Amino acid sequence: MAGGDAELMTTPIRPTDDEARLLARRLLHDARHGALGVIDPASGAPMVSRVAVGHDGRDPLILISSLSRHWHGIVAHPSCSLMVGDPGPKGDPLTFPRLTLQAQAEPEEKAAWREIWLASHPKTALYFDFADFSLYRLRVSSAFLNGGFGRAYELTRDDLEFRAPA
Amino acid sequence: MAGGDAELMTTPIRPTDDEARLLARRLLHDARHGALGVIDPASGAPMVSRVAVGHDGRDPLILISSLSRHWHGIVAHPSCSLMVGDPGPKGDPLTFPRLTLQAQAEPEEKAAWREIWLASHPKTALYFDFADFSLYRLRVSSAFLNGGFGRAYELTRDDLEFRAPA
Repeated sequence: MAGGDAELMTTPIRPTDDEARLLARRLLHDARHGALGVIDPASGAPMVSRVAVGHDGRDPLILISSLSRHWHGIVAHPSCSLMVGDPGPKGDPLTFPRLTLQAQAEPEEKAAWREIWLASHPKTALYFDFADFSLYRLRVSSAFLNGGFGRAYELTRDDLEFRAPA
Repeated sequence: MAGGDAELMTTPIRPTDDEARLLARRLLHDARHGALGVIDPASGAPMVSRVAVGHDGRDPLILISSLSRHWHGIVAHPSCSLMVGDPGPKGDPLTFPRLTLQAQAEPEEKAAWREIWLASHPKTALYFDFADFSLYRLRVSSAFLNGGFGRAYELTRDDLEFRAPA
């Protein structure tokens, strides 16, 4: 096997182009929920759970309860991961695109983002104001886009074009 | 506030009943894909990605490529987490049930489970036999069921009623 082929086999990452950047931004923008990965402080093992995801053009927001396991996880270890992008109802789920963010979770002022959050998540008005619910902002360091079988891209924070913090 | 109420606020876990066990088994049985959480060996941070999930009545199987990041993750740290259970197309995604497994990933003999795997994932026949694809069995230690808002259960391995290993 030629050296070039061997390299291809061990490095399936494609060069990031505008199509990949656009797909990643669309997947994130459209996401209303995601799979959050945190370190379980009790065991040190990874733990995945579903969270609500919101957007204001900056790094994404999540709404979580302090009665939940993932809340204890990100308080102990703010490094976390969020996957967004649902597969369609038919076909191989692995052929649908998804985006994984690597991020640091930072507490956000809930009252300041109430209107923005409820605009995209009106049904969470039932519990948004509960004392145990908090908004966290996921400060993204990098992202991994799987655009479908064999279409993988490593993205930088800049590729996602977040607005600057207020 | 009475002591009982305070206890309720800090321990929202309900006692496991047959309805919860049945829901958990159904969610797992119906799952064809899931969100896998591993430790990224490069950073030590959690990392979430989508994997194909299969079943033979025993602990669940996943099909992953050694060219993927999650493969490197579980080889370095076999402790992992898998969330299954898709939200429906309408309504608050957080009201749909989902199940999180805590598990140890163990390599499985791919050829022995080929027919069982392809029966539920016929479209993966395109790449099942590729040399970089492996089956891993997720040996489950415990599970967490979120049956919808405020309906949380901690499940044991026994609650999931896996068949004994062959």
